Amino acid sequence: MSEQFPEDSVGLVTPAHVRFDEALELESGHSLPGFELAYETYGELNAEASNAILVCHALSGNHHAAGYYEHGERKPGWWEACIGPGKPLDTNRFFIVCSNNIGGCHGSTGPVSDNPDTGKPYGADFPMVTVRDWVRSQARLADYLGVERWAAVAGGSLGGMQALQWAIDLPERIRHAVVIAAAPRLSAQNIAFNEVARQAIRSDPDFHEGRYAVAGSRPRTGLMLARMLGHITYLSEAAMGAKFGRDRRGEEDDFGFHYDVEFEVESYLRHQGQSFVDRFDANTYLLMTKALDYFDPAAKFGGDLERALKQVKAQFLVASFTSDWRFPPSASREIVRALLDTNKRVSYAEIRADHGHDAFLMPVPRYIDVFGTYMQRVAAEVGA
Amino acid sequence: MSEQFPEDSVGLVTPAHVRFDEALELESGHSLPGFELAYETYGELNAEASNAILVCHALSGNHHAAGYYEHGERKPGWWEACIGPGKPLDTNRFFIVCSNNIGGCHGSTGPVSDNPDTGKPYGADFPMVTVRDWVRSQARLADYLGVERWAAVAGGSLGGMQALQWAIDLPERIRHAVVIAAAPRLSAQNIAFNEVARQAIRSDPDFHEGRYAVAGSRPRTGLMLARMLGHITYLSEAAMGAKFGRDRRGEEDDFGFHYDVEFEVESYLRHQGQSFVDRFDANTYLLMTKALDYFDPAAKFGGDLERALKQVKAQFLVASFTSDWRFPPSASREIVRALLDTNKRVSYAEIRADHGHDAFLMPVPRYIDVFGTYMQRVAAEVGA
Repeated sequence: MSEQFPEDSVGLVTPAHVRFDEALELESGHSLPGFELAYETYGELNAEASNAILVCHALSGNHHAAGYYEHGERKPGWWEACIGPGKPLDTNRFFIVCSNNIGGCHGSTGPVSDNPDTGKPYGADFPMVTVRDWVRSQARLADYLGVERWAAVAGGSLGGMQALQWAIDLPERIRHAVVIAAAPRLSAQNIAFNEVARQAIRSDPDFHEGRYAVAGSRPRTGLMLARMLGHITYLSEAAMGAKFGRDRRGEEDDFGFHYDVEFEVESYLRHQGQSFVDRFDANTYLLMTKALDYFDPAAKFGGDLERALKQVKAQFLVASFTSDWRFPPSASREIVRALLDTNKRVSYAEIRADHGHDAFLMPVPRYIDVFGTYMQRVAAEVGA
Repeated sequence: MSEQFPEDSVGLVTPAHVRFDEALELESGHSLPGFELAYETYGELNAEASNAILVCHALSGNHHAAGYYEHGERKPGWWEACIGPGKPLDTNRFFIVCSNNIGGCHGSTGPVSDNPDTGKPYGADFPMVTVRDWVRSQARLADYLGVERWAAVAGGSLGGMQALQWAIDLPERIRHAVVIAAAPRLSAQNIAFNEVARQAIRSDPDFHEGRYAVAGSRPRTGLMLARMLGHITYLSEAAMGAKFGRDRRGEEDDFGFHYDVEFEVESYLRHQGQSFVDRFDANTYLLMTKALDYFDPAAKFGGDLERALKQVKAQFLVASFTSDWRFPPSASREIVRALLDTNKRVSYAEIRADHGHDAFLMPVPRYIDVFGTYMQRVAAEVGA
């Protein structure tokens, strides 16, 4: 072990898998005959099982939220900024759990899993899943781990939406909801971007109506385009300007008058798109964007978010970032207002940050500070 | 003639064509052996030829800026809001000229034209063109029409950039520049959106490296995706929200759990994408986005816009729209500041409008008012 991990990292981690054999009825009317969850845990569950925190991942995330899979690895889990000894989700105090959502492509049952009816990958036959379905599947994991009530459910973006849905659907099982860079529902513009991404994937000739695995192909181009587009919405205009501006590759003063990479921002986007294709499944991308579009907990309450929140027992930390134009502060404020109007306890932080939506993944000092302070209160409350 | 056109419309119009046989050297180093321009004119050139106005079109526009091609037609030219009797570009006073840019696909020499060397459509062999090239090609049209000096050159978006470039490159030939919803250069985010659009087109298997016409195909899917994406950036988030919100098609209360059109905004985007494909050429789209990316009049002056503007003699009207996030007011203000710092005369209007970038095409009352007042002054000045 010549290499060391940073002191504030959970270090080497290993994913676990659990299979649930009881059928899961989905909101779509379909059901899964059973399902598997890939998950990771960091820290130790205390004797009272009071210090468990569920971390929920966003669109392209998975259960690898912190730490490293091997020595020498450069890239830790996606929420390394917030999970680890001394970090907001302090693994010296909390037992952190993060699972890959069903419909995902990193170990939990999803389109790349074998369909028991056919012995072949589900592909397009995997049923659509919703945020509520994820909450119900995660509740099984809580049962399995012996966690009756989460000290907190936390996440950013689509992960924050899951935390909100947890508080609504299973109010007895969650003490705190940490909802970061999220929204009570997608805007028309959000849906529009998702729709372009879906069209890019579905119109790729290698998509084969979603049965590309059986056909021995993959819609690489469509998925690449979807990811490139996504990346534009994850960064703020200012962040992109500061990072790339109009910088060009190569030394020539003059333009190249060709369609190869010329501006640095083009190079960045192509790289992001191409590397994504190697680690993500197109059907999963489609499912995740639909789950986002459908998310609207107020819908079942006549569009009234306050009514949706009435049965909530959790306390909330809501945080947003000033330069996030995907899920802007105004969307978070709508959640906060509805919570206040229903007499729930909520702390709200609007963090000045230039990084856009991606800020929730980054060690923005004020964000880490606010999040950490809140979680220390939670730790004290649950005896962690 | 049972049908009538609106009284403030120029009514029935017919496009004209002119061919220039002298070669045109392009900024890329290539040259066109000659070229044709499709154009339209509205109003009458006065005896002194002092009342001529050049209107420049944007990315997907063309020379059909006002009026109708036939009786019963529902859709007039793209700037019908601003061109016509009594409108800001008043055809009772001015002689309005609008030409299709070279590289275009509606009658001027471009990728769909036959390459004289091969007798087949240029396709991908059509050289890249820049805003400066357009100015020089339009100057030939001015010569041909007997216009030594335009009373004004006017346009929105990429059209406004052409007006700015006219003022810089041919200062003696333009009295006024009307620069609407434009920018002194594209931001990294602007370029990023263009790059995704280009990748969508160029990765379409029907693109055939741009030689799709010879191959008997068209990259319909890629061009559709590019247009869908473009439309998101033309509308403001608020406008999209007001127009579509989360409205869904059909009467079902519940979600469809399918990938067909479900939300109204999806239907709108698909329709916009599909109808665009029937009237636009993919190679032209590529060329236009590159001309946008390259536009940066300050670049040849060490990045100093003030130096670029030094030789300008024109007076300016600059206008922007509060909800335009493609070319936001801050971009227009940068042009205004540089003009003021070089002691040029400039009027600036920041128009409150919810329509986003598309506002420049719309009859926003305050915009029409400001634009009209400015043009009345121009009319008085040139004896129109």
